[in-house]
Amino acid sequence: MEQSVVSIEQWLEQHLLQLNLVQDMNQPDGFSRLGFSSEGWEAHDGFIKIAERLGLTVRRDQAGNVIARWNPENHNASLQAVTLGSHLDTVKGGGGYDGVAGILCALAAIKELRDNGFQPDHPIEVICFASEESSRFPISTIGSKAMSGIIKLKELEKVKDEAGYTIKQVVESRGLNWDMIRYAEREENEIKSFVELHIEQGLRIENAGTDFGIATAVACPIRLKIKIEGKMGHTGTTPMGMRQDALVAAAPLITFISEKAEQFSKENPYPIVATASTLTIKPNAMNVIPGIVELGVDIRSVDDALKEQFKALVKEKCSSIEKEKNVNINIEVLVHNASIQLDEDLSIKLKEIGESLGHRCLVMESGAGHDVMNMSKKWPSSLVFIKCRDGLSHHPEEYAALEDLRLGVDILVGYLQQEARN
Amino acid sequence: MEQSVVSIEQWLEQHLLQLNLVQDMNQPDGFSRLGFSSEGWEAHDGFIKIAERLGLTVRRDQAGNVIARWNPENHNASLQAVTLGSHLDTVKGGGGYDGVAGILCALAAIKELRDNGFQPDHPIEVICFASEESSRFPISTIGSKAMSGIIKLKELEKVKDEAGYTIKQVVESRGLNWDMIRYAEREENEIKSFVELHIEQGLRIENAGTDFGIATAVACPIRLKIKIEGKMGHTGTTPMGMRQDALVAAAPLITFISEKAEQFSKENPYPIVATASTLTIKPNAMNVIPGIVELGVDIRSVDDALKEQFKALVKEKCSSIEKEKNVNINIEVLVHNASIQLDEDLSIKLKEIGESLGHRCLVMESGAGHDVMNMSKKWPSSLVFIKCRDGLSHHPEEYAALEDLRLGVDILVGYLQQEARN
Repeated sequence: MEQSVVSIEQWLEQHLLQLNLVQDMNQPDGFSRLGFSSEGWEAHDGFIKIAERLGLTVRRDQAGNVIARWNPENHNASLQAVTLGSHLDTVKGGGGYDGVAGILCALAAIKELRDNGFQPDHPIEVICFASEESSRFPISTIGSKAMSGIIKLKELEKVKDEAGYTIKQVVESRGLNWDMIRYAEREENEIKSFVELHIEQGLRIENAGTDFGIATAVACPIRLKIKIEGKMGHTGTTPMGMRQDALVAAAPLITFISEKAEQFSKENPYPIVATASTLTIKPNAMNVIPGIVELGVDIRSVDDALKEQFKALVKEKCSSIEKEKNVNINIEVLVHNASIQLDEDLSIKLKEIGESLGHRCLVMESGAGHDVMNMSKKWPSSLVFIKCRDGLSHHPEEYAALEDLRLGVDILVGYLQQEARN
Repeated sequence: MEQSVVSIEQWLEQHLLQLNLVQDMNQPDGFSRLGFSSEGWEAHDGFIKIAERLGLTVRRDQAGNVIARWNPENHNASLQAVTLGSHLDTVKGGGGYDGVAGILCALAAIKELRDNGFQPDHPIEVICFASEESSRFPISTIGSKAMSGIIKLKELEKVKDEAGYTIKQVVESRGLNWDMIRYAEREENEIKSFVELHIEQGLRIENAGTDFGIATAVACPIRLKIKIEGKMGHTGTTPMGMRQDALVAAAPLITFISEKAEQFSKENPYPIVATASTLTIKPNAMNVIPGIVELGVDIRSVDDALKEQFKALVKEKCSSIEKEKNVNINIEVLVHNASIQLDEDLSIKLKEIGESLGHRCLVMESGAGHDVMNMSKKWPSSLVFIKCRDGLSHHPEEYAALEDLRLGVDILVGYLQQEARN
């Protein structure tokens, strides 16, 4: 076990770099550790080293999650684990705090408790989930879905990454066995509760004049894959009036999605966000009229009815574009998740701990999905937000101040002191 | 030398398959022989075999063009070569007639003349040009530019294909030496004239009630690369009003380009076509707001002033989008070619040959660029169009009827009989 000679701030700074596999957080091209990539795995290995230096017992489960566990000296086997966790995978060219902040603060809380001679009654775990982001595959939070037993393997087996690899191929390239992934599911009685700490990825905490946030609900997405089929043709010889250009058909749909979401957010008590975030075009050649466009659309709100209404309007718009632009449009629903309520008692407890330390709390919802949404299906779960600069996330300039990371550590320490005692 | 035992129609059918490297022209995924690809080279090898069987002398020049030459028995060295030619490379998933028809009919014309015991005074050449299409690199007709000495190596050296390879890399992967490419240029006094036969890729011949076309001008493109820089952000946590979404900024530009070209074509004596034909989006991930969009725009008309005016309007529209959508837009002019007038005497000669065979001719312009536009910079050149079904091109269902290919052969035979005699 590591002997502490550095301050918690120094420890956070050093280990932030280590978990991000860099010497310097200033990375103009950002951080790219896609789920199940070799960079992602390297970050997991970094996590394992740090956890082991803190004296934790580490195992990797069948889904690629890494579980670092503090077993109490005299463990009463009937006492369930108090768990914290987040993820280390990133989007392409993303930031070094999304996910990492949760892992880092959880490990730092363990270090603090260790340094102070704390003796838990309950086991404590820090869980590093596999493939949280949906940047490689269009399905997110794969590791926590497996752990909470809600993974849909048939659906997952269909998806491929940009290079054409199936999820099975990439999982097995990491030495895991796809057919064993369901054994990553854990029993209800193994875990007492789960808390995730995450950067807010927005500006609501700051705008409200508060210091941290506790989310009571998660706005889960509806995700659509919209395939527009027109007709290829030579760009030089096909007169304008005779075209079936799939990209020209996609343009008003992109505009509609953005404008309608802005309008809905103004008109309704809960906001809605909708993004045409992915687009591929075939054949994507200078002298060929686009024949096929595939558009990925991400729609989120904690108001599920509003999401439904929005989806119906997108469908209607596609029908009118089909007629107007002489194309065929097919809409596939990739993800359709209802919003998730988090555990009220646990949220109040975390709020009170933060406030007792002198910090102001914003009770809010989460616009983004996180691993906590899957864990909450099986175990009492809550989500702590710390601030991030300019609300910027999934971006190389994503940044959380050391004092906000420190605030997160303090809340987790306070929480574990209560929750891990019998 | 091959002895003829088949009809010209059978010969065309067989060799159409051979040049396309298939057993059957029904190819649902189309033909993909990008410039300097191994498939493209295989087609060139097929051309070489056929040409050699016809008794032609074949050489590959420093730019990858293949030149098959019929040297007269008693060659007067002062007599210049009468040349025909086109290309065998295709777009991705394109058709089997664009380019191939010209090569096939030229070879068939040689066969007819050989079979009939014709003795030319001038050498006759069939030239198979390298990398005509701009599907791999954003610069077209590379082989004919090299041969006519107008290739801009500095400009070419900057471009890369989708996989990130430079043109130098792909040219050298074919065993050529990039630094030698300028030696593909031929002297003015080596060539008497050049004629390209090509499918129309449109419906003007058919709509005019005619049988073939002679182009008197080629509408060359202005090509723009428009880079829109917004800001990445999380799709779930960035409120609609606070976004700088590069794709939302691109959408009205795509719409503008299509609508304005249609309007201009109605208002002006010559049509204009404009296409946003390529689009890449970064990071192209479901949960990230598009940060960067790169749009390729292809603008064509034989009316150069109209093209200029259109380009200026696109620029204006970009400026207004920059302000409205809070993005930065950079416009790079990749290609800016004035329209090209072909040789009038040669065009009249070809028209009269076709008409003397009983076919009706449409005198027209070409909406697409072809190798002939480069050859015409140095040598008297003309362009013969044959019909293709539904005007469809750059598409797996591209098709030219055997009788139209036969018509093309007959015109080329008549032409060579006149032109290659002293």
